[in-house]
Amino acid sequence: MTFDILILGCGAATPTAKHLPTSQLVNLHDKLFLIDCGEGTQMQLRRHKIKMQRIQHIFISHLHGDHYLGLVGLISSMHLLGRKNSLHLYGPPELEELVKLNLKVSQTYLEFPIIYHPVSGNELKLEFEDKTLEVYSFPLKHRIPCHGFLFKEKTKPPKIRKEIIQEYNLMPSQILLLKNRKEVVLENGEVLTVENSCIESSSPRKYAYCSDTMYWETLVPFIKDADILYHESTFLDSESDRAKATFHSTARQAGKIAKMANVGTLVLGHYSSRYNSEEDFIRQALEEFPNVVASNEGMVIQL
Amino acid sequence: MTFDILILGCGAATPTAKHLPTSQLVNLHDKLFLIDCGEGTQMQLRRHKIKMQRIQHIFISHLHGDHYLGLVGLISSMHLLGRKNSLHLYGPPELEELVKLNLKVSQTYLEFPIIYHPVSGNELKLEFEDKTLEVYSFPLKHRIPCHGFLFKEKTKPPKIRKEIIQEYNLMPSQILLLKNRKEVVLENGEVLTVENSCIESSSPRKYAYCSDTMYWETLVPFIKDADILYHESTFLDSESDRAKATFHSTARQAGKIAKMANVGTLVLGHYSSRYNSEEDFIRQALEEFPNVVASNEGMVIQL
Repeated sequence: MTFDILILGCGAATPTAKHLPTSQLVNLHDKLFLIDCGEGTQMQLRRHKIKMQRIQHIFISHLHGDHYLGLVGLISSMHLLGRKNSLHLYGPPELEELVKLNLKVSQTYLEFPIIYHPVSGNELKLEFEDKTLEVYSFPLKHRIPCHGFLFKEKTKPPKIRKEIIQEYNLMPSQILLLKNRKEVVLENGEVLTVENSCIESSSPRKYAYCSDTMYWETLVPFIKDADILYHESTFLDSESDRAKATFHSTARQAGKIAKMANVGTLVLGHYSSRYNSEEDFIRQALEEFPNVVASNEGMVIQL
Repeated sequence: MTFDILILGCGAATPTAKHLPTSQLVNLHDKLFLIDCGEGTQMQLRRHKIKMQRIQHIFISHLHGDHYLGLVGLISSMHLLGRKNSLHLYGPPELEELVKLNLKVSQTYLEFPIIYHPVSGNELKLEFEDKTLEVYSFPLKHRIPCHGFLFKEKTKPPKIRKEIIQEYNLMPSQILLLKNRKEVVLENGEVLTVENSCIESSSPRKYAYCSDTMYWETLVPFIKDADILYHESTFLDSESDRAKATFHSTARQAGKIAKMANVGTLVLGHYSSRYNSEEDFIRQALEEFPNVVASNEGMVIQL
């Protein structure tokens, strides 16, 4: 099943010729989720031939412009291109007022509903789920309220070995019991368990997204064991004071968090416009954690 | 003296891989004026190495997203890059509420003043002037309130011929009279006039900008004799019904307006995303008016 992330923008607040402001597209089991929507996101979607109407859920981490200023343009284009399907917006409570004011001044009357899901709180919180996946929000530590998002597959039920089904001629109700990890006691007194009758499915995959945050160990439990962690790295060691003052992280700090959280791979991004290359970001993070990738526009990360 | 226009974006509302939403930079006597500020404008300024802090006046024609959604991002970047100088914003009255709400939710406290100049009304109205130039607003006919802008040089005073100054040993007060097109009566009874003593300066140049409008002959007097007219041409003849229904123009209609207004050159733009090339726009406009240019991102038009 598909689980990948397309980097649409990975620069920080002021524009550069090299990077666009933050946005990522998560394809999880062929559902498209947009995370953050900086200025230019709709142009990036077009450039990468993504059908914007396939996006049903948009998650906005916080209301700094480089994370949401592309949202109203995207919504307007969805409208102009004839959208009828609901759009779910997850983000700070003020997002609703912002979107509504923009639609009001442009006298835009959408023909599709927007369902607002205000994101707040200090815990891991389930925001969306369907049969096979879940999306959680969790707090980050930034200058204004800010949340990260965790995309994960649900644990799949164990598969019952074919020969067991045939040998014991299992009934549907017995199969269901095993899939729900319960024991089945047969007429002859024999007991079937997950251990003696099933094959465990591959372990569910997790992607953790930490858009803008200072170094904050409190978030480690929320992102524990993620296969991929995107953690902002606005600055290098040389600007660590500035990182603290502006509630951002250095690449090294991102590496430390990745190590503590025992993630698979760390993806860096949100580079300050003062830097021309990502080499030093990778080098400094690698001194803390062995698997590091520097995000770039157009990169696809597969889980 | 410089008078040129840099096209930053000339597409219409929905994004294409080819065009960006509307924005233009007018350099008039080395003052920079931004007209409209679609999503991506700050990236375009960066791409063209324009120092954004040099922009002191921004004119927004109307509040459809493709004409203003880059504004808050630009203001935020001006702030992050240390701006202290005032910024003058000319546009629909609701612009102030929009900008202020965005600054509030991001908890951005600007260190420079924004001076809001609400634009409204049905007449040619002076919005800004200094010693050498004037900017006017005038109404367009669109689905929501929308204004065009006219940039013009002031008429320069006539230059007094050097030999006249020497021959008659003119006093400063006499020179001033001639510059103000008054007569000077000399002691010997001789009369100096502009006609017999001066050289007229070159005639002042005018640029007229009509962002979004349906075919509307009422605007002709406002843009009369402009050296350059930018007039939107969202559609081709084949979509003329759609042009009318959406309060937009065809390239042919732009050509008709250019002819009636006796302008020098017509610049087309705001092309609907349904078209892949500008050839037919030029061809259809040329059937109405002889001097036609199709705008494109990065194009510089000199007056």
